[in-house]
Amino acid sequence: MTTTLVTGIRSLVTNDPALGDGSPLGLIEDAALVVDQSGHIAWAGPAAAAPDADVRHDAGGRACVPGFVDSHSHLVFAGDRTAEFHARMSGRAYSAGGIRTTVAATRAASDDALEANLVHHLTEALRQGTTTFETKSGYGLTTEDEARALRIAARHTEEVTYLGAHIVSPDFADDPAGYVALVTGEMLDACAPYARWVDVFCEKGAFDGDQARAVLTAGKAKGLIPRVHANQLSYGPGVQLAVELDAASADHCTHLTDADVDALAHSSTVATLLPGAEFSTRAEWPDARRLLDAGATVALSTDCNPGSSYTSSMAFCIALAVRDMGMTPDEALWSATAGGAAALRRTDIGRLSPGARADFILLAAPSHVHLAYRPGVPLTSEVWREGRRAA
Amino acid sequence: MTTTLVTGIRSLVTNDPALGDGSPLGLIEDAALVVDQSGHIAWAGPAAAAPDADVRHDAGGRACVPGFVDSHSHLVFAGDRTAEFHARMSGRAYSAGGIRTTVAATRAASDDALEANLVHHLTEALRQGTTTFETKSGYGLTTEDEARALRIAARHTEEVTYLGAHIVSPDFADDPAGYVALVTGEMLDACAPYARWVDVFCEKGAFDGDQARAVLTAGKAKGLIPRVHANQLSYGPGVQLAVELDAASADHCTHLTDADVDALAHSSTVATLLPGAEFSTRAEWPDARRLLDAGATVALSTDCNPGSSYTSSMAFCIALAVRDMGMTPDEALWSATAGGAAALRRTDIGRLSPGARADFILLAAPSHVHLAYRPGVPLTSEVWREGRRAA
Repeated sequence: MTTTLVTGIRSLVTNDPALGDGSPLGLIEDAALVVDQSGHIAWAGPAAAAPDADVRHDAGGRACVPGFVDSHSHLVFAGDRTAEFHARMSGRAYSAGGIRTTVAATRAASDDALEANLVHHLTEALRQGTTTFETKSGYGLTTEDEARALRIAARHTEEVTYLGAHIVSPDFADDPAGYVALVTGEMLDACAPYARWVDVFCEKGAFDGDQARAVLTAGKAKGLIPRVHANQLSYGPGVQLAVELDAASADHCTHLTDADVDALAHSSTVATLLPGAEFSTRAEWPDARRLLDAGATVALSTDCNPGSSYTSSMAFCIALAVRDMGMTPDEALWSATAGGAAALRRTDIGRLSPGARADFILLAAPSHVHLAYRPGVPLTSEVWREGRRAA
Repeated sequence: MTTTLVTGIRSLVTNDPALGDGSPLGLIEDAALVVDQSGHIAWAGPAAAAPDADVRHDAGGRACVPGFVDSHSHLVFAGDRTAEFHARMSGRAYSAGGIRTTVAATRAASDDALEANLVHHLTEALRQGTTTFETKSGYGLTTEDEARALRIAARHTEEVTYLGAHIVSPDFADDPAGYVALVTGEMLDACAPYARWVDVFCEKGAFDGDQARAVLTAGKAKGLIPRVHANQLSYGPGVQLAVELDAASADHCTHLTDADVDALAHSSTVATLLPGAEFSTRAEWPDARRLLDAGATVALSTDCNPGSSYTSSMAFCIALAVRDMGMTPDEALWSATAGGAAALRRTDIGRLSPGARADFILLAAPSHVHLAYRPGVPLTSEVWREGRRAA
């Protein structure tokens, strides 16, 4: 592999405060990047000071930002829920099976069909600038189906999350304790080899605080790192549990007490906000401003799934976060890149400074601000992953 | 030109209630279309009953909808207002010049630069499925600059609107009556040959009811058809004036009295809603449900302009209309296609039934519902205009 000099960058977001303007975005105007033979950033700085390289690539005045890091998605599934969405948004009654509908379709699908659907959505996300994505099981809910989902996911990403505790399996409707025993026992044993993370939906109607603690603790004992679906639909113990167990991320965080905000601010647990879910369910927005002002680290992700948030667009989430969650355009971009990296405890992505993976987007715009200023417009012009053009 | 059979359409929106399921969308499942030699629809119906044609094109299970009709945009401009947007969304003070900033940049730009910028945005819109667009002057505010804007616009669309009365020109700050005299006199004479429509921004700080009436009446006398920027930022006389003068459309309609709603419902004036503006200025949403329930005809458009709504995405407007304005996914699609056509008093577009122009989109989705169900995701797979693949 050759080295590449990307020049003609109107504005470069490095997310390295030591570079550029000293802000958290580490912004450099009229910039250049050098990608080394291994697909990492060798140099970033003003174009006038750029070293030479084997090959030159002209950004032509476009802005360059780190590839999006989508740290929360549910992409191993089959079927869709168009009819349910259509009815909900048309004010019509509909006997929605919710997650159960997708569980039934996923169990019935072949391995090939599940993988093809995953690849379809990953390709769609990559074209929109997402260069790293986490994805979860949670639509199998049997030992075999959960392990299958993770095995398929692990072929396509390093960031694989075991979510056997998505809902209590319908097969255990009368025996939730039995289902927790399965999730923390045989199912965990079968799934742990494929996963880096363990997750639980801690919510009324899903798993309570004690059950969630059992799931996460068992996962930790198997070497998985916790992350938690916390405080999405109501106040609850999820955020406190996430902080207590040093989870990498508490996801959703829509209903937070002052104590929850304080706990996040004084922890290494990232608050991952998922505005696509509030958008598609007409729910109350999470308050990013409150978290940021308290000092918490905030990530933005899509929650891409066929029920509550069927968007794969990180740019759309940025626009919503700016419009409705009190984030500035700079904060929202940081959260969709460096914030996602923090939520995955990664230091090699989410930034464009020496040593980082050369994962970046050239935008059809002169500035990252356009991601919020031009909502809905596909601005992803080129996507590079590990130093090569990927879309 | 040959005839083309487009087959393999999973679901076809014709907007002709006489076709398909009898709903306003005239939906046909497993459908086909035939395009004739002149680029019009010759036939639409179930694939099993399709006649033959010279060429076959396989939609491969995608949904097909009419091309979007964007009946309100401001695309003859120069410069952008990134810094103003950035400051507004970051809670920072900024001495924004508003429309005046764009007027200064537009006046200073060459004809070639203005046309290149227009073509850039039209191409961007076409790729997103917009096959018909209206666009306006309004950033020149001198006889020469307004006529120039319209002359350039008329090279690219039939739907050209004279908006000399966008704001009172800064050159007439102390003499608004003098500016109205210019807009209704010499400027109108110079502009009318290039335009089909006359428009006015009827709002506190722009033009009051009497001034707006003068502008529209003068335009009508020159053969232009009225449309009105009405009731966007506050209650006012705009909607009533639009109905009284039989305007094709009253645009924005955010602040409406019951009498305004009633007037629209009992007129041939379309209520054109522009949710991109409310999104990008964090303003109150227009209430589409109230208008629809009263019996008004509703259109959706982008209002694409560099100040208050810099989106060219009709799909984004559909998603907002469903989420925040009480429209069903079916109503929103109708309003973005047939509604836009009604707002432009066109019967040859906005539908896919025999005789209509063959302007259509193949979506990367099985159903039009996905435009709202998958917000922010670019779902435009192919765009056909006048019977040919255009994007």
